[in-house]
Amino acid sequence: MSFKLKTVILITACAFTPVAATLAAGNGEPIQPIPAVRVSNPAAVELGKMLFFDPRLSKSGFISCNSCHNLSMGGSDNLKSSIGHGWQKGPINAPTVLNARFNLAQFWDGRAADLKAQAGGPIANPGEMAYSHELAVNTVKTIPGYRSAFRKAFGSDEVNIDRLTQAIASFEETLVTPDSRFDRWLKGDKKALSSEELAGYMLFKDSGCVACHNGPAVGGNSYQRMGVVEAYKASSPAEGRVAVTGKDADRFNFKVPTLRNVELTYPYFHDGAANTLTEAVDTMGRVQLGRKFSADENARIVAFLKTLTGKQPSFAMPTLPPSADATPRPQPFN
Amino acid sequence: MSFKLKTVILITACAFTPVAATLAAGNGEPIQPIPAVRVSNPAAVELGKMLFFDPRLSKSGFISCNSCHNLSMGGSDNLKSSIGHGWQKGPINAPTVLNARFNLAQFWDGRAADLKAQAGGPIANPGEMAYSHELAVNTVKTIPGYRSAFRKAFGSDEVNIDRLTQAIASFEETLVTPDSRFDRWLKGDKKALSSEELAGYMLFKDSGCVACHNGPAVGGNSYQRMGVVEAYKASSPAEGRVAVTGKDADRFNFKVPTLRNVELTYPYFHDGAANTLTEAVDTMGRVQLGRKFSADENARIVAFLKTLTGKQPSFAMPTLPPSADATPRPQPFN
Repeated sequence: MSFKLKTVILITACAFTPVAATLAAGNGEPIQPIPAVRVSNPAAVELGKMLFFDPRLSKSGFISCNSCHNLSMGGSDNLKSSIGHGWQKGPINAPTVLNARFNLAQFWDGRAADLKAQAGGPIANPGEMAYSHELAVNTVKTIPGYRSAFRKAFGSDEVNIDRLTQAIASFEETLVTPDSRFDRWLKGDKKALSSEELAGYMLFKDSGCVACHNGPAVGGNSYQRMGVVEAYKASSPAEGRVAVTGKDADRFNFKVPTLRNVELTYPYFHDGAANTLTEAVDTMGRVQLGRKFSADENARIVAFLKTLTGKQPSFAMPTLPPSADATPRPQPFN
Repeated sequence: MSFKLKTVILITACAFTPVAATLAAGNGEPIQPIPAVRVSNPAAVELGKMLFFDPRLSKSGFISCNSCHNLSMGGSDNLKSSIGHGWQKGPINAPTVLNARFNLAQFWDGRAADLKAQAGGPIANPGEMAYSHELAVNTVKTIPGYRSAFRKAFGSDEVNIDRLTQAIASFEETLVTPDSRFDRWLKGDKKALSSEELAGYMLFKDSGCVACHNGPAVGGNSYQRMGVVEAYKASSPAEGRVAVTGKDADRFNFKVPTLRNVELTYPYFHDGAANTLTEAVDTMGRVQLGRKFSADENARIVAFLKTLTGKQPSFAMPTLPPSADATPRPQPFN
């Protein structure tokens, strides 16, 4: 009784997630397979890949997008909070860039409307890459290899922040992880999941997790309060969505993270406080659903979650075009 | 007269480089093409590639081998000196890992006999990755994906520092850059170089650069004093080979760096003081050869040096096996 009531509250709170509609879609499951990527501008993707790996977009010449969204590590840094310029401690856990295109907005508080808007953030954040858009553009435009890549991608060799962030976003849009075992199950391969994993999925649905973790990304499509039933004592100072809307009701509301590849994206929550999936499932059960999962139930849900690991993006590491004599040199120590 | 005398002094100083023998080899050129790689243990190479990219070999979980020997940037970090744990400023410029297998020893002072011995250095250096061999082994051995990779590479899943560094070295041995335009010229394609580039090579030989920069790596096979004719005022506190031999005569003797891919491995010298090839050629001419190259001569040599950029290693970025619940978590801030 108590549990059902809480589920209803949660569903009601899902302003951005028409759960009923989602449930009705496709084969009736609230989670859909990751759709295939269609690349419309391959030259922009190639350029964006170079920029994503290029630490020259940071003041130090040491930090690239890939430093905190490491594509060898589930698109995350596997740190509680990230390390920025001068070894500054970031205020929040770096979300994965994998399948980020499915998010309703970017950052934990949704302050960037899309991947392009997001890409400009860390470059200019004094606690992250500590550069500026102007300096990043001025650096990139001196590099002949980049100018020709901009020409291929955009028809002229003009470098500006709009094109630069568009190219990074074009690359990031390709970072999807199809063909997880769960997706194969969704598509009809009933042998793709073990009975324990399937039982975990049933429990995931029945206990209400799916109210917020649904859609192709199994999350990413709504903001929710962290700590619905029980208060959550975060180790991060971040207050979530209120920073964007200014509404007190949005305090401690965060974007629901995707659970795709969650096996790879530890530690968990906006404050990175949960080191393991077992801890994360336990905490979520308690603070969001008012439910204490037994060890068996927890293990079952964890087994299901691990079936969400998809095919990781695979591509040759880009060779970055060398700086020219005129290229500004990194300033890591001043 | 003065110049010839200095060349003789340089050649005499080349204790580790039988220049005459080198000159007599092959087609009579003092530089030989990069030989092809033969991989004897592909599973060890794959394991080593994962370890090379894995920041869990550092205390912070943020610094991997690739942080300072970035394979997107000529196997270097393109910084004057590297950034270590806690944003410490390294004492010396990070040498490229590309073609490092051809070096007579590793590090600028040659303190590691080979790549395997080198690989253990940064992991345990408090100013670099700031971990220890024991902690690195204890971390890796908790990761199931690594245990199976060790089994494939070495026949059992035992993880120890000997195997760990051997695997990294096995990967690094594959990091060669064949098929540069200069190598194509060496192999008989006379159209591979422009007349300016060829003139640059002739000047490189005639002016004595080749006394130390010879062999397949165009360097890496001898120790030489930095500042033969003129004293060199280094911005680095490193004193070179004396740290290994204890002999005062070895003070400011450094391993001659490879010039392969030198277009990509700026800034130059053990102290990273030269930002551009033009500066580097000018300084080398003055302090090693007592020669002031004219602007035209300098440009010609630089044009030749850029023909030494070979085919960069190309492979899919590895997907790192996820940590298990028992894996120690990184400690970036304490």
